[in-house]
Amino acid sequence: MDIKELKLKTVDDAVTEIKDGMIVGIGTGSTIELLLPKIAALLNDGTQITGVCTSNKTALIAKELGIKIVDVNDVDYIDVAIDGADEFDSDLNLIKGGGGALFREKVIDDMAERFVVIADETKFVDYLGQTFKLPVEVDKFNWLLVSKKITKDTQAVVSRRNVEDIPFVTDNGNYILDVELLPHTNPYEMHEYLIHLTGVLETGYFLDVTDRVIVGTKEGVKILDKE
Amino acid sequence: MDIKELKLKTVDDAVTEIKDGMIVGIGTGSTIELLLPKIAALLNDGTQITGVCTSNKTALIAKELGIKIVDVNDVDYIDVAIDGADEFDSDLNLIKGGGGALFREKVIDDMAERFVVIADETKFVDYLGQTFKLPVEVDKFNWLLVSKKITKDTQAVVSRRNVEDIPFVTDNGNYILDVELLPHTNPYEMHEYLIHLTGVLETGYFLDVTDRVIVGTKEGVKILDKE
Repeated sequence: MDIKELKLKTVDDAVTEIKDGMIVGIGTGSTIELLLPKIAALLNDGTQITGVCTSNKTALIAKELGIKIVDVNDVDYIDVAIDGADEFDSDLNLIKGGGGALFREKVIDDMAERFVVIADETKFVDYLGQTFKLPVEVDKFNWLLVSKKITKDTQAVVSRRNVEDIPFVTDNGNYILDVELLPHTNPYEMHEYLIHLTGVLETGYFLDVTDRVIVGTKEGVKILDKE
Repeated sequence: MDIKELKLKTVDDAVTEIKDGMIVGIGTGSTIELLLPKIAALLNDGTQITGVCTSNKTALIAKELGIKIVDVNDVDYIDVAIDGADEFDSDLNLIKGGGGALFREKVIDDMAERFVVIADETKFVDYLGQTFKLPVEVDKFNWLLVSKKITKDTQAVVSRRNVEDIPFVTDNGNYILDVELLPHTNPYEMHEYLIHLTGVLETGYFLDVTDRVIVGTKEGVKILDKE
């Protein structure tokens, strides 16, 4: 099975989570872009759904496909959110934020009654931070101070994210620091430490929020459910 | 003693904190605007100081007065920060943020080796939140959700700050929620609760950071020092 075919299989699985009348949180990334036409196809069968998106990009594509998209402030709950991840461990804890949308993703994924992740098996890690740097969204005002403080306090190497030599700016107007965690850093402790720093809006840790990971493997789709 | 005269007395006291060669954090507000010419006067005596400001407004006035102002990211420490407060209690804990600059104030006041507050006696309270609403800086993306969640979880009435019917926007591009705390709300617990909400950048609680409050009273200037 080639990669595209495998991604489509995981997306087929994910779309079965969506039922008539639901408010659906829709993530960001290449896999989610494969999911969007599948959601649009549900509408043809008469299913009514309302979408809330984690990025302007997803919202644009969804609207073009005829999916009703509303502002997150206009809903009181989200039935299910579907999103990708940059890493996941055996507790279904995640690192997200490779696309820079971690804050909006967290707002929507936390709010959802049920949170389903689509990821391929290369994203599975023994511990968070094994292969991916932890993205941390920080205010522009004191970003360099925060960066230096993290390195001083934790010995982690920190770099501000650039895109083609220009600082990357989030949809919220902030910077992203990519934190190269020391091996086996405890995610709960690190998250607590970081959110107490004045200037940190959010971290890319998604802890205790995932209900299911739909994993694309060479042998086909595997389902991991929260115990 | 009239109010202006009293304010000038407290400012005279505050300026004695500043010594040659220091990096000084300079706050925001009407009292601080009285302090700025006193700092400028020190320069005439040959004292060299570098200032870091909590607001664009203060920075502008300071520069006009010839005070050298640098960006907070360009300093590694601050010797002393001087700022106002909206409330202070007997532990020298504060509520700040009436001017909407709480985030930048916190960055600078937390960083300072020594933090000195100037306030008049009407700002003294039995418990924080007695007379003033707690300002909380929140991202625009999900501000209404955060507002509703705070009310649901804590029973506090929450309103978004407006100026002449238009939402107030901070120097960082965020909104301020003014939270009407229930009587005797524990500030440490409330602060912890709030910073864990996705979308909250900072709260207006300044806990365990104040070294001295210079209080203007009807009987003259009173000094309160951290025990």
